[in-house]
Amino acid sequence: MQDLTQWTAREAAAAIRDGLVTATDLVEASLDRIAAREGDIRAWAQIDPGLVLDAAARADRARAEGRPLGPLHGVPVGLKDVIDTADYPTEHGSPAHRGHRPETDAAAAAALRAAGAIILGKTVTCELATHIPGSTRNPADPGRTPGGSSSGSAAAVADRHVPLALGTQTLGSVIRPAAFCGVYGFKPSFGAIPRPGVLEQSGSLDTVGVFARSIEDLALIGDVLIGYDPRDGATRPRSRSTLMATVEADWTLPPTFALVRSDRWSDLAPEQREAIDELVGELGARVTEIAFDFAFEEGIAAAKLIREVEFARAFGSLADRTPDLIHPELRAVVERGRAASAVAYLDAKETRERLERLARAIFLDHGTILTPAALGPAPVGLASTGDPHFCSLWTFLGTPAVSLPLFEADGLPMAVQLVGARDDDARLLRTARLLVRSLAAAE
Amino acid sequence: MQDLTQWTAREAAAAIRDGLVTATDLVEASLDRIAAREGDIRAWAQIDPGLVLDAAARADRARAEGRPLGPLHGVPVGLKDVIDTADYPTEHGSPAHRGHRPETDAAAAAALRAAGAIILGKTVTCELATHIPGSTRNPADPGRTPGGSSSGSAAAVADRHVPLALGTQTLGSVIRPAAFCGVYGFKPSFGAIPRPGVLEQSGSLDTVGVFARSIEDLALIGDVLIGYDPRDGATRPRSRSTLMATVEADWTLPPTFALVRSDRWSDLAPEQREAIDELVGELGARVTEIAFDFAFEEGIAAAKLIREVEFARAFGSLADRTPDLIHPELRAVVERGRAASAVAYLDAKETRERLERLARAIFLDHGTILTPAALGPAPVGLASTGDPHFCSLWTFLGTPAVSLPLFEADGLPMAVQLVGARDDDARLLRTARLLVRSLAAAE
Repeated sequence: MQDLTQWTAREAAAAIRDGLVTATDLVEASLDRIAAREGDIRAWAQIDPGLVLDAAARADRARAEGRPLGPLHGVPVGLKDVIDTADYPTEHGSPAHRGHRPETDAAAAAALRAAGAIILGKTVTCELATHIPGSTRNPADPGRTPGGSSSGSAAAVADRHVPLALGTQTLGSVIRPAAFCGVYGFKPSFGAIPRPGVLEQSGSLDTVGVFARSIEDLALIGDVLIGYDPRDGATRPRSRSTLMATVEADWTLPPTFALVRSDRWSDLAPEQREAIDELVGELGARVTEIAFDFAFEEGIAAAKLIREVEFARAFGSLADRTPDLIHPELRAVVERGRAASAVAYLDAKETRERLERLARAIFLDHGTILTPAALGPAPVGLASTGDPHFCSLWTFLGTPAVSLPLFEADGLPMAVQLVGARDDDARLLRTARLLVRSLAAAE
Repeated sequence: MQDLTQWTAREAAAAIRDGLVTATDLVEASLDRIAAREGDIRAWAQIDPGLVLDAAARADRARAEGRPLGPLHGVPVGLKDVIDTADYPTEHGSPAHRGHRPETDAAAAAALRAAGAIILGKTVTCELATHIPGSTRNPADPGRTPGGSSSGSAAAVADRHVPLALGTQTLGSVIRPAAFCGVYGFKPSFGAIPRPGVLEQSGSLDTVGVFARSIEDLALIGDVLIGYDPRDGATRPRSRSTLMATVEADWTLPPTFALVRSDRWSDLAPEQREAIDELVGELGARVTEIAFDFAFEEGIAAAKLIREVEFARAFGSLADRTPDLIHPELRAVVERGRAASAVAYLDAKETRERLERLARAIFLDHGTILTPAALGPAPVGLASTGDPHFCSLWTFLGTPAVSLPLFEADGLPMAVQLVGARDDDARLLRTARLLVRSLAAAE
């Protein structure tokens, strides 16, 4: 018997469609893997085998009855526990929300179910999707952080509990854990995936993202999730998402890259620096180093201010009502957000507009930005989820980003990050696939 | 010889097209009228007869050469001195900007020139388009304020210096002076008229508006000005404005109105109250009184906060550099704006969204809101420009508003205000015309 937990979502969906395996087989393989590994990894906040096996049985009946099958029919997916589900509690990693039971699914959860996916359970998140760690450990080394705040989703995909999981990124909460755990992470353009039913931390930064073990899987689930929702003012009416069609289309021109080292290149772990330098060397003339380093300091400062202000609005009254149930560092964020002036907030928004214009010019000249996904491999210890430095600027600018787990040092994964022009997510994923393929071919 | 200064813009443009008068005739009539009246009214900040007569001569040559004529060909227009012009200085009513000469026309000025209009000069504005009065007096009674901040534009149209003038409204700076001076005033939907080259006081409130002596003239100039400009994020791509076509189309259903008295009905001058009550009596069953009074207090408080914050950003560094050239009350506005918290600012924006939703529901049930344009006739004295109470809420909500000079008491004009659904400016003007016609027919 093959190990079904090795399959990508696309392989699993095809095998179910073709009758080679059932959804029940797949879900059982996931549950067995979790039973064996969860004691070490602690990726799951909520999981109910009975519920999940029922859903798998329904999916198998639907196929047996000849009903139309969605693109994720029977595929188990993990959801970060900040995304509402009507069947599981949604606790936001917060003692203040223990036992909270949403009445309806988040838009993203509903889209997954409509596509036939089986929501396996809720994955561990940092408290309120911030930097205060949950219980999850890095599958590559349980003494190291998996990154955060989408800790459980990244670890669950890396450790083959599920082929797909959803996370959210407000500063660096998808790309960083993807890099630390060694999976593919995709933070789409701001506004691509509708957010109704997702915990609001910072309305002008919060972005739903995904984890997978292949770029094609990122495209597959991205096409299911991306769309317009009138309840989310960040989304826009758009034609149907066609990530997969673009990723798979023939393309002969090799992509070009703009290398951005950032102002903290010297803070990089030596092995991360060497890996990027080696990659840049292999790409040769297809890479041009550009000067965008100045954008990091002011962009990240502005992003932090916007996030603190919006965090204070989102959680201020909760912190007032139940201060003992909010981590002191998060109460301090509320206080800083409340102390920020409106003038400073609007200045930060203007900084974003100015840097966005500069970024647009970069993407006209160079197709894609190439930059590290993190300062190095996952740091030792579970008290910190690591530094979001290489992610925050791109979240702030709303540009799509993908983390590619191309490197390893002493068994620890490291990643390169590609960043594309806003709302050109399909081209970013295509470029990522071409890069991964050309490197694989060169080996 | 007819008195050309009595003509509406539409009559004047038709007479020029038909060769009955020349642009030079019209401009000379304006200049004569101004020469006779300006000592009393003081409506003009900048006027250069040589420049204007040259422009009129060019307009007449263009017609003689058979070139295509725009809808305002040869018609003199006044521009509030916060709207950039390449030929006249633009001083914003501020000693700090004395002698300031923009290099290019504002988008609105360029649109007027493209339509053939002759920019006669720049009209007096309150300091930086606020409540600190300029020199203008009310033509109906020079001992009374013309209202502000578009003081000169309202007075110049009322006193027949020009048939048309442009103003701006951030709280109540078009509708109130129109009411006090007894002309038609039109504040279109937020974002209807592009603002590049217009002094920015509060980016999320500033709205360009117009003054005329007929509703058809409001539609005529509105069609010239309304449009999309990528430099102004408040504007949206749209089809060509068709106010005039809508205003003139046959329409048999009598319009219905929602009467809004506001929470300060008891502060109204008795003659204003009586005038509205009488109008409501005449309209009978076509008016329904609705309860929207609660919106005034919170809406106006939120509008003021947003305006103070954005004012502080717009003029804070000017006030720091040249404090002696900024009125102390405006320096205090800067200080209040700087002291406002980002959380309070975002709460105010959320208040706007909530009240906008309520307003949309009102306009679905009732076509148009009917409410006073001001608390009464122009107050005595020139030290204050009056209270914007009845205007601020509608500016805040971005809804189009029109001031109709339907009443008079002791020779002083008073107005009713109609407010329409956002972006349905054409229907608002059509309703206004139907109302004015039905009242004229009833007399």
